[in-house]
Order: sequence, then structure tokens, then C-alpha cells
Amino acid sequence: MSDPQTVPVPGRIMAAEMAEQPAVLQRILDEGAPKIREVAAQIAARRPRFVLLTARGTSDNAALYAKYLIEILLGKPAGLTSMSTTTAYGAKPDLTDVLVVTVSQSGGSPDLVASTKAAREAGAVTLAVTNNAASPLAEVSEFHIDVLAGPEKALPATKTYTAELLALYLLVEGLRGGDGAAAKELPGLAAGVLSRRAEVKALAERYRFAQRLVITSRGYGYPTAREAALKLMETTYIPATPFSGADLLHGPLAMVDNVSPVIAIVPDGKGGEALQPVLDRLRGRGADLVVVGQQAQVDAASAGFALPAGVPEEVQPILEILPLQLLAYEVTIARGQDPDAPRALAKVTETR
Amino acid sequence: MSDPQTVPVPGRIMAAEMAEQPAVLQRILDEGAPKIREVAAQIAARRPRFVLLTARGTSDNAALYAKYLIEILLGKPAGLTSMSTTTAYGAKPDLTDVLVVTVSQSGGSPDLVASTKAAREAGAVTLAVTNNAASPLAEVSEFHIDVLAGPEKALPATKTYTAELLALYLLVEGLRGGDGAAAKELPGLAAGVLSRRAEVKALAERYRFAQRLVITSRGYGYPTAREAALKLMETTYIPATPFSGADLLHGPLAMVDNVSPVIAIVPDGKGGEALQPVLDRLRGRGADLVVVGQQAQVDAASAGFALPAGVPEEVQPILEILPLQLLAYEVTIARGQDPDAPRALAKVTETR
Repeated sequence: MSDPQTVPVPGRIMAAEMAEQPAVLQRILDEGAPKIREVAAQIAARRPRFVLLTARGTSDNAALYAKYLIEILLGKPAGLTSMSTTTAYGAKPDLTDVLVVTVSQSGGSPDLVASTKAAREAGAVTLAVTNNAASPLAEVSEFHIDVLAGPEKALPATKTYTAELLALYLLVEGLRGGDGAAAKELPGLAAGVLSRRAEVKALAERYRFAQRLVITSRGYGYPTAREAALKLMETTYIPATPFSGADLLHGPLAMVDNVSPVIAIVPDGKGGEALQPVLDRLRGRGADLVVVGQQAQVDAASAGFALPAGVPEEVQPILEILPLQLLAYEVTIARGQDPDAPRALAKVTETR
Repeated sequence: MSDPQTVPVPGRIMAAEMAEQPAVLQRILDEGAPKIREVAAQIAARRPRFVLLTARGTSDNAALYAKYLIEILLGKPAGLTSMSTTTAYGAKPDLTDVLVVTVSQSGGSPDLVASTKAAREAGAVTLAVTNNAASPLAEVSEFHIDVLAGPEKALPATKTYTAELLALYLLVEGLRGGDGAAAKELPGLAAGVLSRRAEVKALAERYRFAQRLVITSRGYGYPTAREAALKLMETTYIPATPFSGADLLHGPLAMVDNVSPVIAIVPDGKGGEALQPVLDRLRGRGADLVVVGQQAQVDAASAGFALPAGVPEEVQPILEILPLQLLAYEVTIARGQDPDAPRALAKVTETR
């Protein structure tokens, strides 16, 4: 993976972009952090009381991660917006004292631009977090943070996801006057995780003929479960359903049996503790359980991928998603498909 | 369905509770509405500026419906809470000027009780919307609305979902000084929809051997898509993935082909208009598309279930879910399973 030129043609673009992640994280820490701290200080001076996050797809999962940070570390109520209330229904809520954060890789989606513009007119402090400083979204927003990931060409977003997570973590640290120290080791740790591609390739064999997947986590790990499900669906076409552990214990548990494998992201910390009763229940049902988490958690499961120890829980999501991106890639290759050529596009040239 | 005694044993309880829905809706309009109006007036006098909604499972989908109402009709920013931030991480956000609405059928879940208690201590105006006026949740909340659905025995919640929707609609109407007139005809219309069980039974044949389902909508219809997916997963065990139409157009569209049938809930109004490009795209891909919506929309699809015309868009979700509840029931029966005996419970007595 370290040398994309040696990767066979299918999935070449996605593989190259996944491999860039340690460098992107380092760039954000080195070049992005001072600007993010400055933006955070200006926003903090406006004393927002409530935070709304607006995004779609992969960026929506990054926004959900930010929501946990804002509620837990910053102690402010936060919500994800339902964009159609503004764009389709013309809702005009009073947004005085509200910080509206719009997260978008391209910064070019017209409805994100329209809803951010409307939010600014309604009195919100607006911040765009994008991978394109020259984008229309960056332009209509009062503040802008560049996630510095470089051009993203693969349809499955990978490096912009982890870049958004780190930028949002540094933003929240800035808003609360923290130093973001928890992120310092991430580039090296990410490189270590990404180098273990052979382990993930072995795990991928398991899902070669899978017809469905259930993915679960709690707390900080829940956005990872959602993003892993999206990544697997986009690339492998296997229906992968994410559930918070608490919700899974209700009705949907009926879906889990020995033909519905489960992937659990087990945070090292309070989220992982809260997930234990769910893991016990799954083991009791004889579910095939693959864990992404600490070695002891992996040992208690059917199989898994052990993450480095000693990383503060609030930045673990930046590492957790990496083996799951690799898994989406490897399962796609194992099934004879091309992660760089999703069927939704290929179909255009087919007759039916 | 009108006489549960004649229904064969599998699914008897679920069938009986679905059939009660017109009577429950009428009871809320007749007996519940004055109390809801009074509670709404007291809350409005406290002038909340933000609304947070807390719930799980089916009630979470009802809460999402309320979020649309609050943003569109009431013009206030709203968010769904991530409960673990309070219960697992001990987050203590400042909730002055915040209305926290907790929606729960039983009102007995200890974490909902704990998070509501914490919200009240943090300065929030707290409102419980439950089906049990004597529940711990109702007790710890400053205000309470009883959804008056009567005891719910089936594991797949049906009558409490529509009861929660109507109660939340009347609450938002009360908060904004509306008269709730849009709901008046719902009991009769619901009875009409539920009487068309034979139509749904014919549709159910289509999914007899389905391995997966994609369910989509936009705007007011999106909570219906989520609740339909949950209902189908709980009863049939078919992985049913809900997507907002806007999200589906991105990566996950690759999952849709002639082995991934799509169900679209097409609201009659702005949500439905915003969904049209998605429907065009699905038709262009040759997807099997079943529509729940107006007759013209059904006629332009592979098949569907036509809803009554002339119902205001904001209360259509109370009718939209009914054929989808029936569908979950009929597909389960067609597959030789029992909607009243979900595998998650039956498993307890099995050895494996």
C-alpha cells in the first residue's frame, strides 16, 4: 500500500488515497492547526450556545463525530440538520446564538451552499469545513477551515473523512481552549495500522460470500459504524446496516444469526464499556462477531483487528475507520469488483 | 383485520394492534387534544429557543418526525440527542432555554429516565411523551403527554408509533398556536387504508424471496422510510436500508439493481417534489420501484399503494406508515414466520 504503483489496477485510486492518510493528518497538525485555532478563537468570542451540523454522506458521519465532541467536551447542545427543511420547505428558524457547521469535501453542493446562506441570513455564525478553500461553500460561510487532504478522486471518500475528523477535533479543542495534544501521535499510529493490510485481507475472506452485514458500536465509535457501513455498501454492494448498540438490543437483534455477521467497533473507554452487554448478547446468540478494538476485545470475539493501546477515546475514531476502509477495499477486490468503478457509474454504458 | 379473532394465530397480536389505530387516533383527538393544548401553552410560556429530542427505536423515528415539524412549522432549531453522551460520558451541557422532549412507549427505560433527569437538572424544560402516565419517565419530567394507545403487547410497535406522531403533531400545533385541523380526518382515512389489506398482501408476494431492500423518501416522508425499514427488519429479518433520497444519489445507489428492490415513500407536496430526481434515476437504472404515495406516482412505478388525496403534507406520515406496517406483517407471514414471535426471543429456548 505504501507504493500505489505496485497495486494492481482495480482499486488503484482508492488504495493510493487511503495510503495518503498519515501524511494528510501530519499536514493538518503542522500547517492546518494554527489556522484552526485562530478560527476557533474568533468563533468562541461570539459565544454560540447551540451547534447545528449540516452535511451529507461520508461528511455527515464526520459531523456526527463532531456532535459527540461538542456535547461531551464542549458541553453544548448540538444537532444534525435535516437539510430539506430549509431547501425544500423553506423553513426559517431563528438562528441567533447558533453556530452552523457545514462539512463537505467538495464544498460545491448547491443545496449545502443554499442552506448555509440561509443560516447566515437567519443570524447564525457559519463555518464551512471543506477540502476546497476556493469552493462556493467556503465563500458563503463567515468562517472556513481547509482540511488540506489534496484532491480526492476515488468515489469512496477515505482521506477526506479522516481529515475532516481531525480538523473537527482540533476545532472543538480550540473552542474549549484545549491544546489538541491527544492528536499528536495519530499520523504515526495511522501509518502502523495501514501497514497491516495482510491482516485485513485475511479478514476479508470471511465476507467473500456474505449477503448482509450488521455493524454496531456506541458513543464515539458510533460514527465509525455508520461510516464503515456506508463504505462497505458503496464498494461491495453488501447491505450493511449500522446500529447503535442500544438500538440493536431491541427489535433488530432478530436479524442477527449465523448468516448475518456482525462487526463491532469497541472504543477503548466509556463507549466500549457501554457496548459490553451488547457483545455478550451477540456472543450468546452465536453470532459471527468481528471486533475492531483493543487486543483483549479481539481475543473475546470470532476474529478482529487490534488497535494500538493508550490512545485517548475522543480521537480513536480517526484510527478505527482505517482497517474498515481497507476491509471495504479488500472485500470488493475479493468479490471480483473494482472499488474505483462503482456500478452506479458503469451502468450508464449498459443497455437493459 | 377488523376482527382479530378470525386472524390465524401467527401475527394475531400485531394484527389486532394495527387494527386499533383508527380508534387510538380518534381517542387522541377527542380526549388527548385538550390536555396536549394545555401542556403546549405552558411550555410556550417558557419560550424555549432550541428543542432536543431523545428516543430509541420506533420512538426515535417519531422524534425525527417531530424534528421536521419543529423546524418547518415552529421555526426553531432542533436536534436528536445522542443519549450515550449523557449516560456513558456524563456530558453536562448547559440546557437553559432548551426544551427536551423524550419519547418512549413504555416510559420505563432507565437510561431515558437518567438522561431526562440530567436534562432537567441542567436547566431544560422537560417533556415526556409516553404511553404510560404512571411511568418513571413521566414522573421525572416536568411535563407529560399520554399518547393513549392502550397496552402494547406486540414486539413490533405499530399503534404507539402513529399515536406518538399524532400527539407530537398536536404538541407542535399547540406550541405555535395552531388548531391542529389537519388531523381531523385521520381516523377515518386510516380505517380506509387499513381495510385494503388484500392490496398489501399482493404486494407482499414481491418480497417473498427478497434478500435486501432499500427504502427511500425525503422531507416529512423520511421518518416513514426509517420506521418502515425498522419494521421490516424486526419482523421479516430482511436487511432493509433507509436512505434520504439526497444521500441515495451518492454512493449507495451502486447497491440498487434488479435484485435490490426499492420502496419509495413519496409525500404529496414539497418532499415528494424534491424526491422526483431520485425516482427518475431509479427508473433509469431499471430498479424495481414500489411507491407509497399518490395514485399518479404509483402509476409511474413498478407497483405501489395509493394514499388518499388532499391530506396536508405535515400529517401524511400518520397514514404513510400504515400500508408499510401491513407489508411487514404480510411479508413475514408469506415467509412462514410469525410476526408475534421474533427470533431474538425464541432463541432463548434453543440450544446451539
